[in-house]
Amino acid sequence: MSLITAIDIRLFHIPLAEVLVDAKHGDHHFFELITATVRLEDGSEGTGYTYTGGKGGHAIAAMIEHDLAPFLIGKSAQDVEALYDAMQWHVHYVARGGVASFAISAVDIALWDLRGKQLDKSLWTMAGGAASKCKAYCGGIDLGFDLPKLLASIRGYLDRGFNGVKIKIGQPTLEEDIARVKAVRDLIGPDIAFMVDANYSMSIDEAIAAAEAFKPYDLLWFEEPTIPDDYAGYAKIAAATGMPLAMGENLHTIHEFGYALDQSKLSFIQPDASNCGGITGFLQVAKLASKYGVPVCSHGMQELHVSLVSAQENAGWIEVHSFPIDQYTTRPLVVEGHLAVAPDNAGTGVTFDWDKLESANLLTQ
Amino acid sequence: MSLITAIDIRLFHIPLAEVLVDAKHGDHHFFELITATVRLEDGSEGTGYTYTGGKGGHAIAAMIEHDLAPFLIGKSAQDVEALYDAMQWHVHYVARGGVASFAISAVDIALWDLRGKQLDKSLWTMAGGAASKCKAYCGGIDLGFDLPKLLASIRGYLDRGFNGVKIKIGQPTLEEDIARVKAVRDLIGPDIAFMVDANYSMSIDEAIAAAEAFKPYDLLWFEEPTIPDDYAGYAKIAAATGMPLAMGENLHTIHEFGYALDQSKLSFIQPDASNCGGITGFLQVAKLASKYGVPVCSHGMQELHVSLVSAQENAGWIEVHSFPIDQYTTRPLVVEGHLAVAPDNAGTGVTFDWDKLESANLLTQ
Ligand SMILES: [Mg+2]
Ligand SMILES: [Mg+2]
Repeated sequence: MSLITAIDIRLFHIPLAEVLVDAKHGDHHFFELITATVRLEDGSEGTGYTYTGGKGGHAIAAMIEHDLAPFLIGKSAQDVEALYDAMQWHVHYVARGGVASFAISAVDIALWDLRGKQLDKSLWTMAGGAASKCKAYCGGIDLGFDLPKLLASIRGYLDRGFNGVKIKIGQPTLEEDIARVKAVRDLIGPDIAFMVDANYSMSIDEAIAAAEAFKPYDLLWFEEPTIPDDYAGYAKIAAATGMPLAMGENLHTIHEFGYALDQSKLSFIQPDASNCGGITGFLQVAKLASKYGVPVCSHGMQELHVSLVSAQENAGWIEVHSFPIDQYTTRPLVVEGHLAVAPDNAGTGVTFDWDKLESANLLTQ
Repeated sequence: MSLITAIDIRLFHIPLAEVLVDAKHGDHHFFELITATVRLEDGSEGTGYTYTGGKGGHAIAAMIEHDLAPFLIGKSAQDVEALYDAMQWHVHYVARGGVASFAISAVDIALWDLRGKQLDKSLWTMAGGAASKCKAYCGGIDLGFDLPKLLASIRGYLDRGFNGVKIKIGQPTLEEDIARVKAVRDLIGPDIAFMVDANYSMSIDEAIAAAEAFKPYDLLWFEEPTIPDDYAGYAKIAAATGMPLAMGENLHTIHEFGYALDQSKLSFIQPDASNCGGITGFLQVAKLASKYGVPVCSHGMQELHVSLVSAQENAGWIEVHSFPIDQYTTRPLVVEGHLAVAPDNAGTGVTFDWDKLESANLLTQ
């Protein structure tokens, strides 16, 4: 494969249709999308990307531009895994998570896009090939919705063909959370998968009380009850209540995933290829999770994760996230018979509609 | 205290007198210094800073400019600890370490500078007040020095009045490392403190073999034998060899320090206020370390850490680092009777010589 000659970086602030609120990140008026297009001397190109809830995008773009691009230009794009390791060491002093994980992720996804185009292979075949479809649920950032609006949004998910839904919890009182959980279960009936997400807003004791109170409502999982740093705390909640727990969107290194899988008694793991090291990082997590018998789910960017999750023997559910990145691609997420369908195109199968992104962009560049 | 009206950010690439090499970060031709000057509406100002080995500076500056400054402007600078927590949550999704820790550190140090000037107090009195002097050793980034040059640099440290020295290890063979350790101990005699630093270049087994081989040379500590992520690995090395271990420059959150203190059987902890959350973060680590009976040392920016370490009841040694930030201030580090002396000025006591920084800067801005 020919050498890397350039990496083009773009930063978009994409407005949301309405203000979205969760328990720990405040109001979201827009999300950030950072794209990295890696160009080779033979004229071929691959595009990767990452996203945030509105903070850090400039820093991520700066790291790709000033630290990763100068390091990669002139190197062969062929050995993606070796470049991944080399990038991790290159920025190690300011990394081991945080902004570097997002920046490396965007570049790694671009390198996989090139690899797939080179090999004429789709991502789901390269990433394991177990299947080309996977379970999918809609996750709302709906803590600020009143009950009628919450239920309307849930109805909307079912109308779109999904058979799994997730709501945010973390209302001022547990009673309010319970009332919303009950109302959603009453609405969807017993056969729809139902999850809740606290965005680590609870102490261990609060999470135990909440998990107990949620038991009548048959939750598939309770996501991020407490801070992601407290691996043993998760295990305490799981042991005390038997509630299935999920986490992963805030874990950024394979070491963090190792500790979580080893210590947290998780029932589901939710890596996000946009912040855990791209496709290389995601596949490392999936492999580790399979050793623990834990199904691999995902967080965000459904248009890419549909391929990564479908491909795993230990596939869980992809989250169809409220940041609609897929709507800015040439192939918004396809759902058939409740299952999300991975694209068969060579590369990642994610092709941005640049004109649509540029017209939506709130940032003047 | 009046409200924050602006944060001025500057990024410098400061050349080193010669190329410095360690086991995992390659060649250093320059270091990066990122300064943040917080201005209040009453005209007062405080300056904080962070630094890197050459990568990440643009990303750190971008995060301060685009994420932290807009968040802080209009807020009172008074409650530094509350602002620290608020900054951590503000960028949490792209943080928990990495670039965000460096960016928050720079701003936090600026807020402490303002606090000290407001209260007319020196940093060592604000930070604990145990003493105004502390032990200090010179740490070379000298893996690339041949033996005569290594010994000449060690002689230079002693000539400058220090009674502790540290060298890098991680030569192609353990025999070469042993020969250098022996040569340094032979040169300095039995009364000078002597440490080695592997910059996490070794496996657990390699580190155990090295620690055994170093035993005749009476090392005060063996620093970062293996990757900072492997908390239990450190304990294995300590248990197998009895060698005192040190780490901390690569730990960026209080949770990481908690795991290291709890699991790694460390004899010394080495937080760096430039990357563990500034003065607020450093003092949290110092407090936690005192519960474990572990002396608090430091990494880098000696001109600031002299105050933070001196102030602790559990004070260890400050590192006098090869990145000479103190030479670009109006008060380069003062050493008297082998002890480093903290400044008595109100604020952090670190005042940059902006003209000197600007003339040295390799970056055209
Ligand atoms: Mg979530
Ligand atoms: Mg060191």
